[in-house]
Amino acid sequence: MYKVEIGKKILSANEEYAAKNSRLLAEQGKLCLNMISSPGSGKTTILVRTINELKGKIKIGVIEGDIQTDIDAKRIQATGAPAVQINTDGACHLSAAQVSSGLEKLPLADLDLVFIENVGNLICPSAFELGETAKVVVLSVPEGDDKPAKYPAIFAKSKVLLINKIDLLGAQMQVDFNLERAKTDAHKLNKSIEILPISAKTGEGMADWYNWLVEAIKNIRSD
Amino acid sequence: MYKVEIGKKILSANEEYAAKNSRLLAEQGKLCLNMISSPGSGKTTILVRTINELKGKIKIGVIEGDIQTDIDAKRIQATGAPAVQINTDGACHLSAAQVSSGLEKLPLADLDLVFIENVGNLICPSAFELGETAKVVVLSVPEGDDKPAKYPAIFAKSKVLLINKIDLLGAQMQVDFNLERAKTDAHKLNKSIEILPISAKTGEGMADWYNWLVEAIKNIRSD
Repeated sequence: MYKVEIGKKILSANEEYAAKNSRLLAEQGKLCLNMISSPGSGKTTILVRTINELKGKIKIGVIEGDIQTDIDAKRIQATGAPAVQINTDGACHLSAAQVSSGLEKLPLADLDLVFIENVGNLICPSAFELGETAKVVVLSVPEGDDKPAKYPAIFAKSKVLLINKIDLLGAQMQVDFNLERAKTDAHKLNKSIEILPISAKTGEGMADWYNWLVEAIKNIRSD
Repeated sequence: MYKVEIGKKILSANEEYAAKNSRLLAEQGKLCLNMISSPGSGKTTILVRTINELKGKIKIGVIEGDIQTDIDAKRIQATGAPAVQINTDGACHLSAAQVSSGLEKLPLADLDLVFIENVGNLICPSAFELGETAKVVVLSVPEGDDKPAKYPAIFAKSKVLLINKIDLLGAQMQVDFNLERAKTDAHKLNKSIEILPISAKTGEGMADWYNWLVEAIKNIRSD
């Protein structure tokens, strides 16, 4: 009787592609950084600013990983830098095979540096080597200072930790968040979703949430 | 020759436990909400405030899912509510089997409502039914208003969307983030990690990041 170790097999196939990517990058002397963070930590904003401010000094290409949409690749392409969008179609990380096809589509010979912007996720991408030179983890101030303790793997494996949004540290600020856009997009996906803006910190809006809970408990009991 | 559909089998095993949990909750007439969000959106803060403000009205128990640490369960237990910690040991979501064992450890008969605080992740938890009554997705203002468009699955499947941290919408604020704590925790996990506080928005600290890139490209070429 066979005992097939599926987890290992999938990882090995990934490792073969990772080794291929790593060889290609080493042969051509290219730096390749795998950018990993939670959704909304500012990876794309960091890349856009980095590309713009290093123009004429470092030639940068980007492989953009997203579950869906090409919002991020378009933001990168607006800088003039070459960007390849890869949609993982639901998967929570980029694979080395996807990066391999991304590297083929970039004008690699002309570049000094390839950024891989991984899917927004602190967990899964840390387990999949892509053949990159190094991992860079981005943690943004509003996510909280407990994240290295709670999600240790990616912090243990990264060469650099960028702590982003330090303008929010104890300063006066305004967050660019269009409440109507988020509501409209959520309603497009789900007509019946209940949307409750709250602040668990100040208590604003929490009464509506409590009312929803009380009604939901009543409904369960009357079923 | 057999063609084993592993993905389906794993999901089916999960579905059996989910059905078991669902039956148990229905028989006892309990509301059970699966709370899903990115890391740092404020799930635990929402639960702590909800438990404290509904004391005497709704009896609440919590199943806390985390990759590691029992920081969150301790915060819940400090309210006096029963909380069970489940460490997924690296997995990016709770399974229905884990929730089943969590439900056994809670004094279910005495409760009106069980919150499941899933692992901080917008992607994986949306694919695993736990037998819950409904999913609640939490999106916090600093994550950006593009998250429903970019991570559609969880918004399509949820009954409620809590948009948290609305106190940050256009207001003056101060973010509770202890830079030293984050640095110390990251260095404990990885002595050699380079830590660069930046603001991709204002440009503060970005020069150090650019210097790091320039040096890293030099090092690659001299290898």
